[in-house]
Amino acid sequence: MVLHPFDSVTDAEIRLASKLIKNAYPADANVHFVQIERTDPPKKDMIKYLEAEKNGTPTPSIPRVLYAYYYTHTLDFNKALVNVTVGHVITKTKLPKGTVGPYLPNDMIEWEEMCMQHPAVKAEIEKLKLPSNYRVRNDPWIYATEDANESRPLVQFFMYVLAGNGHSESNHYSLPLKFSPVFEAYTKKFIRIDYLPGGFDETITPTLPWQEVPCVEYHPDLVNEPVPRDVKPLLISQPEGPSFTVQGSKVKWQGWEFRVASSAREGFVIYDAHFKGRQVLYRLSLSEMTVPYGDPRAPYHRKQAFDLGDCGFGVNGNHLNLGCDCLGVIHYMDGKGIDASGEPFVIPNTICMHEQDNGLLYKHVNYRTNNAVVARRREFVVQTIATVANYEYIINVKFVTDGMIDIETRATGILSTMPIDENVKVPWGTIVGPNVMAAYHQHILSFRIDPAIDGHKNTVVYDDAVKLPRDNKLNPYGVGFVTQRGYVEKAGHIEQSPFTNRTYKIINENVINPVAKTPVGYKVVMPARQMIMADNDSFNVKRAKFATEQIWVTKYRDHELFAAGEFTNQSHSDQGLGVWANGVDDVRNEDVVVWATMGFTHIPRVEDFPVMPVEIHNIGLVPANFYDKNPALDIPQANNTFNKSVQLSSANASCCSKTNL
Amino acid sequence: MVLHPFDSVTDAEIRLASKLIKNAYPADANVHFVQIERTDPPKKDMIKYLEAEKNGTPTPSIPRVLYAYYYTHTLDFNKALVNVTVGHVITKTKLPKGTVGPYLPNDMIEWEEMCMQHPAVKAEIEKLKLPSNYRVRNDPWIYATEDANESRPLVQFFMYVLAGNGHSESNHYSLPLKFSPVFEAYTKKFIRIDYLPGGFDETITPTLPWQEVPCVEYHPDLVNEPVPRDVKPLLISQPEGPSFTVQGSKVKWQGWEFRVASSAREGFVIYDAHFKGRQVLYRLSLSEMTVPYGDPRAPYHRKQAFDLGDCGFGVNGNHLNLGCDCLGVIHYMDGKGIDASGEPFVIPNTICMHEQDNGLLYKHVNYRTNNAVVARRREFVVQTIATVANYEYIINVKFVTDGMIDIETRATGILSTMPIDENVKVPWGTIVGPNVMAAYHQHILSFRIDPAIDGHKNTVVYDDAVKLPRDNKLNPYGVGFVTQRGYVEKAGHIEQSPFTNRTYKIINENVINPVAKTPVGYKVVMPARQMIMADNDSFNVKRAKFATEQIWVTKYRDHELFAAGEFTNQSHSDQGLGVWANGVDDVRNEDVVVWATMGFTHIPRVEDFPVMPVEIHNIGLVPANFYDKNPALDIPQANNTFNKSVQLSSANASCCSKTNL
Repeated sequence: MVLHPFDSVTDAEIRLASKLIKNAYPADANVHFVQIERTDPPKKDMIKYLEAEKNGTPTPSIPRVLYAYYYTHTLDFNKALVNVTVGHVITKTKLPKGTVGPYLPNDMIEWEEMCMQHPAVKAEIEKLKLPSNYRVRNDPWIYATEDANESRPLVQFFMYVLAGNGHSESNHYSLPLKFSPVFEAYTKKFIRIDYLPGGFDETITPTLPWQEVPCVEYHPDLVNEPVPRDVKPLLISQPEGPSFTVQGSKVKWQGWEFRVASSAREGFVIYDAHFKGRQVLYRLSLSEMTVPYGDPRAPYHRKQAFDLGDCGFGVNGNHLNLGCDCLGVIHYMDGKGIDASGEPFVIPNTICMHEQDNGLLYKHVNYRTNNAVVARRREFVVQTIATVANYEYIINVKFVTDGMIDIETRATGILSTMPIDENVKVPWGTIVGPNVMAAYHQHILSFRIDPAIDGHKNTVVYDDAVKLPRDNKLNPYGVGFVTQRGYVEKAGHIEQSPFTNRTYKIINENVINPVAKTPVGYKVVMPARQMIMADNDSFNVKRAKFATEQIWVTKYRDHELFAAGEFTNQSHSDQGLGVWANGVDDVRNEDVVVWATMGFTHIPRVEDFPVMPVEIHNIGLVPANFYDKNPALDIPQANNTFNKSVQLSSANASCCSKTNL
Repeated sequence: MVLHPFDSVTDAEIRLASKLIKNAYPADANVHFVQIERTDPPKKDMIKYLEAEKNGTPTPSIPRVLYAYYYTHTLDFNKALVNVTVGHVITKTKLPKGTVGPYLPNDMIEWEEMCMQHPAVKAEIEKLKLPSNYRVRNDPWIYATEDANESRPLVQFFMYVLAGNGHSESNHYSLPLKFSPVFEAYTKKFIRIDYLPGGFDETITPTLPWQEVPCVEYHPDLVNEPVPRDVKPLLISQPEGPSFTVQGSKVKWQGWEFRVASSAREGFVIYDAHFKGRQVLYRLSLSEMTVPYGDPRAPYHRKQAFDLGDCGFGVNGNHLNLGCDCLGVIHYMDGKGIDASGEPFVIPNTICMHEQDNGLLYKHVNYRTNNAVVARRREFVVQTIATVANYEYIINVKFVTDGMIDIETRATGILSTMPIDENVKVPWGTIVGPNVMAAYHQHILSFRIDPAIDGHKNTVVYDDAVKLPRDNKLNPYGVGFVTQRGYVEKAGHIEQSPFTNRTYKIINENVINPVAKTPVGYKVVMPARQMIMADNDSFNVKRAKFATEQIWVTKYRDHELFAAGEFTNQSHSDQGLGVWANGVDDVRNEDVVVWATMGFTHIPRVEDFPVMPVEIHNIGLVPANFYDKNPALDIPQANNTFNKSVQLSSANASCCSKTNL
């Protein structure tokens, strides 16, 4: 089978790349891979390819190139680019000392065991004098940054008591301990043990016998709910099959056409999206997420994960299950992981795709005749879920029948918890269980939108709704308002301005809507949000400039993909938007990239523990004077011959009521 | 059947009330009703009633009281209160001159015809020299306010060409005319014809022959789409029946218990909502909506509708249809309309209730074992849809299995359009079709939340997330942040502050969460929004003070139900929050009411025409340290034995691809 340049990486490609790289080193270099993934072809080549594909002419041959991150001689971190079409290593580069690559999930699991076996850790556990059957479990954690001179790859471990019920799914996050060992990652050298405060300030205490408190459990085996709720099945079926087709990476649904590929770092990537024959996006993906915590006390000041750059969203992707993670007729796509030797493995069903109904799309009733037109809103969802230690992130890119794309993030999973002493309250955290506190924190996600609004020359503008000045002739009653447009001329950001209804748009100044007589465009609809709260000169901000503003605009360059830069683990500065949004590059009527930062400040509730009901946050890409009328008028009208809904009969209701009321 | 005090008004009650009122006047008073509906009992009585109901003790008898608005002698506007339990008129009051009641839908339809038949209007239509088969249609419109001395009930008519296709559903909004007759409502006196500008300024022209332009149609019979989209059915079924029961007004679902009643003015009202046995709300409804337009030119400066107070949301409610307006197993509730004689009629199925799936509620995967806990988010939706001339509003109150309530507004229908001359652009509107413009406008809805967070003594607070000052001891790295709480002490409003993550909460200071050790509460989650844009001294703002701020808090008083006051039609000032949010009443630890204003500035897109894809706006009521842990741990885990989803086989996919690719 001939691969499309946007198709996901294959096992064979990964194997070839790792083999070629290993062959390029002596055996004692001990090549230790941490990430292998396909790169995108240069856009100028791909534009030619996609044009040829559209026109049905022969497509130019574009080699598939993989990147690999790996350690040699345990301590040297390298990056190679491998042409797997012809089979040669293009470049291999030893990266500067202090560059730390993403941690491989397999390594993390190995380090978990390493930590538990270390005598210093064992001695500390001994002091806990745990009840029999109780054990200790740890979560290896990203070390983050506190010292500009630190260049070793480090890993810290948060330690927890595992309750004595013998159940593998007991919620250790409910029982955090007050010490945190630190190791050097690949040498496995023990560095020290940090002690965690339990009171209001940074005061720490030596490890004492553990005071038993109940564990707040989440697993159904362990939750003692009096009666599970009586939920009746709600079945979603498509007896005539779904309305979508998938061929390789290509999806077609309801006027939409695009490709989906898995990505070790990003989870999945959407490529080359068209609606009703017109190009909307060249590429769309989650680009980075940072999670800074607001607990100021050492060592919590280091709690700042970059979930894509430090770990990888795809390689931590869930195996999604039928009837659990989405309902209906589901198409799955696998992801790829690797082990340290560069051998690939499948992450089965880590991306799922399906249709769903989401209420009404439009309706109008002529009150004279009572005739209604009514169409339902059907959505096509591309979903992945990543587990990053305690937290789960659900990313849904939803294509809608009216040309809109809804980019939804759902945050769930388990709060990152800290120990807290009895009778202590802290102003930066919520007590969520006995002696357990969840610190305030922020989730700040950067979605990279590489638009192609009727082509690649696009402009980013912002429209403010402002009062028309009072004027005896034109606005004598003081009711008028108009919009004012600002243009992003140079690479940079747009400030939020919710009280002028500021609306971000990506327009094409070269294509005028024949009806509105203004340039065609898409809105980027985002809720106003508090951005990163840490001080400007803190490492939290220096490492994540992208988190300081909601909308960034840069000029397109190949390989500028990740908002905080290529290497975020223990980084000292943002090498992404911090460098690219330089105020210099012209971005008006150019090939531009829009980076949308979805931030939310999470003040934990008790209800978020032991497992958190989803918080849902959305970014909308909405056609705004792109089409020449509502593009969904060709949807069949809703009717019950088609939808087969059922009225609850009163008999039914009173029958149920007999048993339940 | 004994009615519950919160049950919807009945036909018999309406008939009795109108009969008693008519009997209280001489026949020549010509009683002309415009609205009849049940009032709520005094809260102090209802609290006793609900307590007795809960305890299973005999409930006190509470009379059912209806209000009626009606005209006598054509010009006098009156309000009566009628005790329909014992059958007597409690009060009947002639309201002050200048008070204009809501317009009865039947009257509006009659006035439509009256306008068409008037010689002055006919003469104007004559001048259009319309092609044969073309007709003129009008929409009677709320006159609004421009003159503090005006006391007559007036109605204006927007005039449109009805295209010559002979189809009743042809989109006249696509072909607006440039004259607008004004009549006195009940006397049917012709007042004048206003002429509408077509250029950039207020210049008007005499009526000239109509220049034919194509009509942008929305009805499927008239839309010439090349191929309707091939959408496959997506069926939602509940073979074991739904998980809810309804008995009269009482709904029970998944731990939630509440009552639903229809309301002529509000659409529907939710009463006495409990989740898992704990009281959350006493009453919840949409309370008002105003729609001011930003086109400053006369006579458009008068375009400001109050959709509840001027017309009534319930009496303009749609007949909802199975398989159209919601899917699954549906329970319907009727509404009630009246005619001018006070005779009731049924508005069938105007409120629908059903369950729906909304993706994942929570998930966690233990990466060590790959074991997942995963629960789906089930919602119970109470929906109504009102058609207010051109616009449709969908109100969904969605109860969620985790104790949240999601109040969703979907705006759809047809834009209110204005004529615009060829080659003219205006800065306050979008050209949406040939010679047709849609002015910028705002939709500002006030939801009245009468909370009962573990009882009736509640407090409204706002929490800001703010930086912790840099401090060498406690916050040396500049990463710390905390929350600061403000209390609403006096009736008034809270300012928006999205950049401090300001979060509104309704708490009960008398009940402390045993885990968090802070007062129990619910968050009111609202997106930051631009509020009403008109000048402070404009009628638009004077009549709708509620539209100037997002959150208002008042002390509970019986009959303070409507954000802009009881009578909004041609009002001169806001007699609701404009009076009640007085800075005087104590509202801390009192029986309070929270008024949440959901505003959105609508800058029309071409895609919003001829019928508008929904804009969706949400307010969340979210437990925040109300329960002692996630209250949804008793939901059965998602699994495919229960959910019966299907994997799209590759065979299936390529089979489809043969025909569609």
